[in-house]
Amino acid sequence: MTVYVFGHKNPDSDTVCAALSLAYLKNQLGTDTTAVTQGVISPETGFILDRYGISTPEIKTSFAGEKVFLVDTSDRSQLPDDISDAHILGIVDHHKLGDVTTSNPLECWIRPVGCSCTVLKDMYDFYNVEIPEDIAGVMLGAILSDTIIFRSPTCTDQDKKVAEELAKIARENDLQGLGMNMFKVKSAIKGTPIRELVERDYKDFDMNGHKVGIGQLEVVDLTMLDSVKEELARDIIALKEEGQRHSVFLMLTDIMQESTELLIASNDPAVVEKAFGIAPQNNKVQLAGVMSRKKQVVPNFEKAFA
Amino acid sequence: MTVYVFGHKNPDSDTVCAALSLAYLKNQLGTDTTAVTQGVISPETGFILDRYGISTPEIKTSFAGEKVFLVDTSDRSQLPDDISDAHILGIVDHHKLGDVTTSNPLECWIRPVGCSCTVLKDMYDFYNVEIPEDIAGVMLGAILSDTIIFRSPTCTDQDKKVAEELAKIARENDLQGLGMNMFKVKSAIKGTPIRELVERDYKDFDMNGHKVGIGQLEVVDLTMLDSVKEELARDIIALKEEGQRHSVFLMLTDIMQESTELLIASNDPAVVEKAFGIAPQNNKVQLAGVMSRKKQVVPNFEKAFA
Repeated sequence: MTVYVFGHKNPDSDTVCAALSLAYLKNQLGTDTTAVTQGVISPETGFILDRYGISTPEIKTSFAGEKVFLVDTSDRSQLPDDISDAHILGIVDHHKLGDVTTSNPLECWIRPVGCSCTVLKDMYDFYNVEIPEDIAGVMLGAILSDTIIFRSPTCTDQDKKVAEELAKIARENDLQGLGMNMFKVKSAIKGTPIRELVERDYKDFDMNGHKVGIGQLEVVDLTMLDSVKEELARDIIALKEEGQRHSVFLMLTDIMQESTELLIASNDPAVVEKAFGIAPQNNKVQLAGVMSRKKQVVPNFEKAFA
Repeated sequence: MTVYVFGHKNPDSDTVCAALSLAYLKNQLGTDTTAVTQGVISPETGFILDRYGISTPEIKTSFAGEKVFLVDTSDRSQLPDDISDAHILGIVDHHKLGDVTTSNPLECWIRPVGCSCTVLKDMYDFYNVEIPEDIAGVMLGAILSDTIIFRSPTCTDQDKKVAEELAKIARENDLQGLGMNMFKVKSAIKGTPIRELVERDYKDFDMNGHKVGIGQLEVVDLTMLDSVKEELARDIIALKEEGQRHSVFLMLTDIMQESTELLIASNDPAVVEKAFGIAPQNNKVQLAGVMSRKKQVVPNFEKAFA
């Protein structure tokens, strides 16, 4: 029986690339392991997998009775509905500790770094397993994505060091250029349905009993979103209602300006001022210097909802 | 501001020795760190600390506003009441993943091995920090204690390998003899109040909304407990009532016979048969081959209560 490895719903590049890298490592260590995703991969992830010739993992959303390894999350709200019927063997992550629990001892590698693939590099080193060129490439892609080409406040020296080591193995010598090409793919919105944009990098959280959704669109230039901003604002209101959520927030992040415009749909918009000290206007607020949902947005809302 | 390291309530040797070892490691890595305990240490732990000339950590039970590292547990029921007001920087553990959550990314080293100090050896190796003789001694003591001198089903090859490496550093060449001396100290009950025996190695669990306490007394010969067995049985009924618990179970484990007599105080004694397939008689049941609360008792009760 194979062990399945997967990350959060609405898979981003780190979730997919970390699952692939962990599956390769575990297979090398003698455990039959298969990487899967909980949903369709993003265009950015497609770009990374294509570049290194790795096929897209299959989609699988039910794991009752299966042995699983989790990557890139430990939050039940981001995991399959039947996760409590699965046997969780371990977790590799770089986020806050979520509300998953287990009945048996397990293997957790969780570090306060910018990317799950940075933690995976530690695992390869620890187990003394050589990283092949294609796996190094996807791990590098995930780090460039999650750290916004080393610009995010979540980026640590360890992420930079690991990225340089992976770049050598993957024979990449222009990380800024590679990263910009990735983010141009990520920024492309033409022809994409509005809901798909809202959910492209979207996560639901349980904040003190309230269901709160936070999405993020990272673009190389915020004016690229001017034509769809009003539709996005309307759609997060719809998304809030459909899921009986307390709030849905959408971060429009300009990776060159290093700032975020937050679109707000909330039963209590005052939480935004509580979280950031700035009063929203027209259900929007400008957050200069904010790029990271994990480090600069989720903790503030957790406090505001506490 | 120092970072506090501590383990579970009713500290056992692993909780105390892991806290001391992690504090030493973190201090070497440049973080001011202090090991503390949530309660009085056991005679066995006193024996270990004395042998290697390490002073007993101070008791501290409130951590609001403090930075902390947890060892040997991630269960809220085994942590200080104000743990949610502390800033958890990381967890080193070898148990199932409990219900602690954090608002920020953290550092978790959790492995399915027999002892938290075995995980700590990985950390020392990873950070390339030399283990001094006295720290190696207490880590070794913890491993001998938690694995019941390598007899427990929780004991892995990794625990044995690490114990051998630590024995070299601590200049111990008779691990069986050292272990037996430790367990003789642990077995001593003369003059000890009954409640102290019940709580010596006692943990509360939340099992599907029920408060369930499970204690364990490990002795080198079960007949040593004959004179107090009836008093123990009465006292776990009292403990159950006092704490509005659903059940309190006390494992009387004979480490030479490798078996456990389970004393039962429960609102629904049928859970015991559900858990082990053996009907209790007179609120007792004999469990041949059972030595480990973590691996052979807790998971069975978790399923029985589910």
